[in-house]
Amino acid sequence: MRSKLLVVGTIAHDTIKTPYAKVERILGGSATHIALASSMFNLDCSIISIVGNDFEKKHLDLLREKGINTSGISISNKGKTFHWSGEYFSDMKTRKTIDTQLNVLEEFEPKVVKELSSPDFLVLANLHPEIQISVLNQIKNRPRLIVLDTMNFWIGTKRKSLLQILKKIDILTINELELKLLGRKKSLSDCLKVLTNDLSIRFLIVKRGSGGSLLVTKNSFDWVPSYPFCDVVDPTGAGDSYAGGLFSSLDINKNINRKSIIESMVYASALSSFTIESFGIERLLNLKKKDIVKREKELRKIARV
Amino acid sequence: MRSKLLVVGTIAHDTIKTPYAKVERILGGSATHIALASSMFNLDCSIISIVGNDFEKKHLDLLREKGINTSGISISNKGKTFHWSGEYFSDMKTRKTIDTQLNVLEEFEPKVVKELSSPDFLVLANLHPEIQISVLNQIKNRPRLIVLDTMNFWIGTKRKSLLQILKKIDILTINELELKLLGRKKSLSDCLKVLTNDLSIRFLIVKRGSGGSLLVTKNSFDWVPSYPFCDVVDPTGAGDSYAGGLFSSLDINKNINRKSIIESMVYASALSSFTIESFGIERLLNLKKKDIVKREKELRKIARV
Repeated sequence: MRSKLLVVGTIAHDTIKTPYAKVERILGGSATHIALASSMFNLDCSIISIVGNDFEKKHLDLLREKGINTSGISISNKGKTFHWSGEYFSDMKTRKTIDTQLNVLEEFEPKVVKELSSPDFLVLANLHPEIQISVLNQIKNRPRLIVLDTMNFWIGTKRKSLLQILKKIDILTINELELKLLGRKKSLSDCLKVLTNDLSIRFLIVKRGSGGSLLVTKNSFDWVPSYPFCDVVDPTGAGDSYAGGLFSSLDINKNINRKSIIESMVYASALSSFTIESFGIERLLNLKKKDIVKREKELRKIARV
Repeated sequence: MRSKLLVVGTIAHDTIKTPYAKVERILGGSATHIALASSMFNLDCSIISIVGNDFEKKHLDLLREKGINTSGISISNKGKTFHWSGEYFSDMKTRKTIDTQLNVLEEFEPKVVKELSSPDFLVLANLHPEIQISVLNQIKNRPRLIVLDTMNFWIGTKRKSLLQILKKIDILTINELELKLLGRKKSLSDCLKVLTNDLSIRFLIVKRGSGGSLLVTKNSFDWVPSYPFCDVVDPTGAGDSYAGGLFSSLDINKNINRKSIIESMVYASALSSFTIESFGIERLLNLKKKDIVKREKELRKIARV
């Protein structure tokens, strides 16, 4: 039987400007990237999210064609789909949010129907912590793995709710800025201690963009590089496709421990390195498993994994 | 007998602004950072550079106290010391040059006196390629190792001279932007091929800031992470102290090959991670070897070296 992955996250229209090009209102969002990245393997993936009355049917068809269960996606007639607009600077790393229109996301009250309520993997992508809590409360059996992603905005404004749900997860994905905001200590290593010791988060994956990612536990640090020869076109969604790659690979590895997570991080790095070579989900759509595996092998060698 | 390191590079007054602090006219420059970083070990280090009539004697005394031979530093009475002024953005990675006053550097014609003309290691730090060529021509015996650093400005304006000297060196240190400008290919990996195959550069060290560094040869890629728990105060000079750390460690390793360079890169990463935790050379001055070795050990573990 196929493992079940349930993703609660955003489906978005993204308007993205880079020094070289601009695209308007393309399909994006954390749930989209995570689901598409994990669909590469034999996972039974479902999305819980909301879209507006401007959302094109062809996008839903596309997700379904990739084997993704879209029955948990509400279509609201009360407004438009969540729209994010941002611009990348010439280093293709730093970015500025130009506009965020939450739209239907503001009234989002996720319902987890019975068929979706016993996933093996649960991904609580970046959303209001109260929504993440609500989803978790609707899950029947404790999933094998619960992963949470968040952002500076929620850490700053919804700290209490966030700390509450952090106690119940297995993996937190976080970047350095968020780590500082969450740990509230002067030094990065002290912040890490707050998370692994005081908050008892089992596995911390620190996302460092082109600087790779770091697996931190109470007693260990491990580094996995990003694929260094990317010709970056659009970094949007890199972290989410990384997450999607991680679960699909963990599903193959079966046992979830430091070793299997490191191995999955290498696979996730390889996968996400492709997504940033095109705008939005373009590259994910025609990506072949053999391409990922080839890059994964190179990365293993470079990274001595 | 101690190995001899000869550095030709800049001695500068740096004015540095970060989101948190500003310092004015502190001692900086590539030669300063490289020499101080390498002085941590038992290298006989000499600098060839130029300073102006505003350069304080206490700075020269400081270099001498650290065992650095300053006899190759000309003191010009025709103008002021090279002055660089820059500002770092809130990510502490991207920076903007606010002002560059070459001053006495404009008339710099390095003379390599006999006592300095047979170094074991020669470092041609970032300078006009014609100056780098002139120094190399004054060296008597082929050094065991010649390292060159350059920048986008010289790649753009003095390409011909630069290509000429690149044929004569062993290690080129370069960042991704410079790699693209020098390789003139669309993809990063094609640029790397131009450098290792067409230009026959034996060892390429691609500096990626917090993303670590990459050793590239005709047939291999290896990644060394940067120390991930730095609390960055001022990244200025990180690349140069990295270079200084590299030579001092290579000197201990004796044989210069892929393996010894990777090991030295780990040491260099550890060393340079300290320098960015304070402004300018401050941290380098009171750094203890045992602190570096401790961080080097951590880094080896994280990086699986």
